[in-house]
Amino acid sequence: MAAWGARLAGVRGVLLDISGVLYDSGEGGGKPIAGSVDAVARLKRSGLKVRFCTNESQKSRSRLVGELRSLGFNIHEGEVTAPPPAACQLLKERGLRPHLLVHDEVRSEFDQVDTSDPNCVVIADAGEGFSYQNMNKAFQVLMGLDTPVLISLGQGRYYKVTSGLMLDVGGYMKALEYACGVEAEVVGKPSPEFFKSALQEMGVEACQAVMIGDDIVGDVGGAQRCGMRALQVRTGKFSPTCS
Amino acid sequence: MAAWGARLAGVRGVLLDISGVLYDSGEGGGKPIAGSVDAVARLKRSGLKVRFCTNESQKSRSRLVGELRSLGFNIHEGEVTAPPPAACQLLKERGLRPHLLVHDEVRSEFDQVDTSDPNCVVIADAGEGFSYQNMNKAFQVLMGLDTPVLISLGQGRYYKVTSGLMLDVGGYMKALEYACGVEAEVVGKPSPEFFKSALQEMGVEACQAVMIGDDIVGDVGGAQRCGMRALQVRTGKFSPTCS
Repeated sequence: MAAWGARLAGVRGVLLDISGVLYDSGEGGGKPIAGSVDAVARLKRSGLKVRFCTNESQKSRSRLVGELRSLGFNIHEGEVTAPPPAACQLLKERGLRPHLLVHDEVRSEFDQVDTSDPNCVVIADAGEGFSYQNMNKAFQVLMGLDTPVLISLGQGRYYKVTSGLMLDVGGYMKALEYACGVEAEVVGKPSPEFFKSALQEMGVEACQAVMIGDDIVGDVGGAQRCGMRALQVRTGKFSPTCS
Repeated sequence: MAAWGARLAGVRGVLLDISGVLYDSGEGGGKPIAGSVDAVARLKRSGLKVRFCTNESQKSRSRLVGELRSLGFNIHEGEVTAPPPAACQLLKERGLRPHLLVHDEVRSEFDQVDTSDPNCVVIADAGEGFSYQNMNKAFQVLMGLDTPVLISLGQGRYYKVTSGLMLDVGGYMKALEYACGVEAEVVGKPSPEFFKSALQEMGVEACQAVMIGDDIVGDVGGAQRCGMRALQVRTGKFSPTCS
């Protein structure tokens, strides 16, 4: 315990990943991971600042928070940093009009964005929406642009649901990068900008924060590169043999 | 003309790519590229050995040859080097039992291969078969193997049909490579083994052969690395600005 105390000295804020840390998504809204409902409640009582930092891009924040609340979590929409709002801000700042390859559940997050005459492609975890036809349409839009811009909401390799592992957006990002000869811009973990916006929303410096996640690259590596401390849980997609 | 003569001195055999060189595939069997029916006929009359070397993996050889013959080409199934037969030989030699992510049209080419209890994944240009569900199944098979083996029939970025450009198998290969942390083995161009088998079937040495294709990497680069000469046509997916 002394070792833990030293490792976490000066921590004022805790960033929590959601999928694989709080719960495994899946049929019927998924299942909470043992102890996690209580852990969030205790963190909040402790006086530490708590923020949820997720790459979830298949569900809107309101849907995600609704599911988590029904599983017993003390969580509110304003406490969640997620890629779609960050992407909307980036699109507006740069005058980009996206062709969207996203899940229908999350399309409403882009309601305020001009999608006419697209000059970029935004992909998110579209799940079943990653049909050949939809991928080919995104490919054709990119190939038709003088300066192709591909924005990916996260770059996860896979995630865990109650029934097993599922392909995440990262592979599809790589597919379009290869086919079109472009490099995607990632909005979400492990992008430094994304962690910084979460820290800003908490009002905590990087050196005062710890990120807790199940992804060694997206959560742990990304947070450490921003000057934060990080802990990897042994739940979700964690595997002792896979990074 | 003198320059051409010098460049092609000593050539005894011609390897021809099919898609983008002989024809553009598409609705109703596609369209021949202007002059190509006659060019094949003249090559065959010239006394040069002619072989067709394709990465086509969405159609069986018999279907492909049938379509080309109906467009007027002088071509026979035995003159075609294509990835599926090469893959079957490799699978048998190594005792591999594939999970197949291939187009229904080409599944029959694997009839003689044991697909029970898969210990590898074979992907080809599955077209609409590249659904999320099918990709996820291939991903899960690979993640369940102690030593994941991914075999890709070609690694093309895209190809041209009469209606425009279409995503090829390469992107999907990259997606699985990234998600599973594996490197695919490519059966087809630009693999040296594939070109060598085509040369062997022609009975011509690499230094006596010229490859004609529309893909600067798969056709031209691959052939040159094998010691062959190569010509890039300005049809098919050729673009003066894209490699």
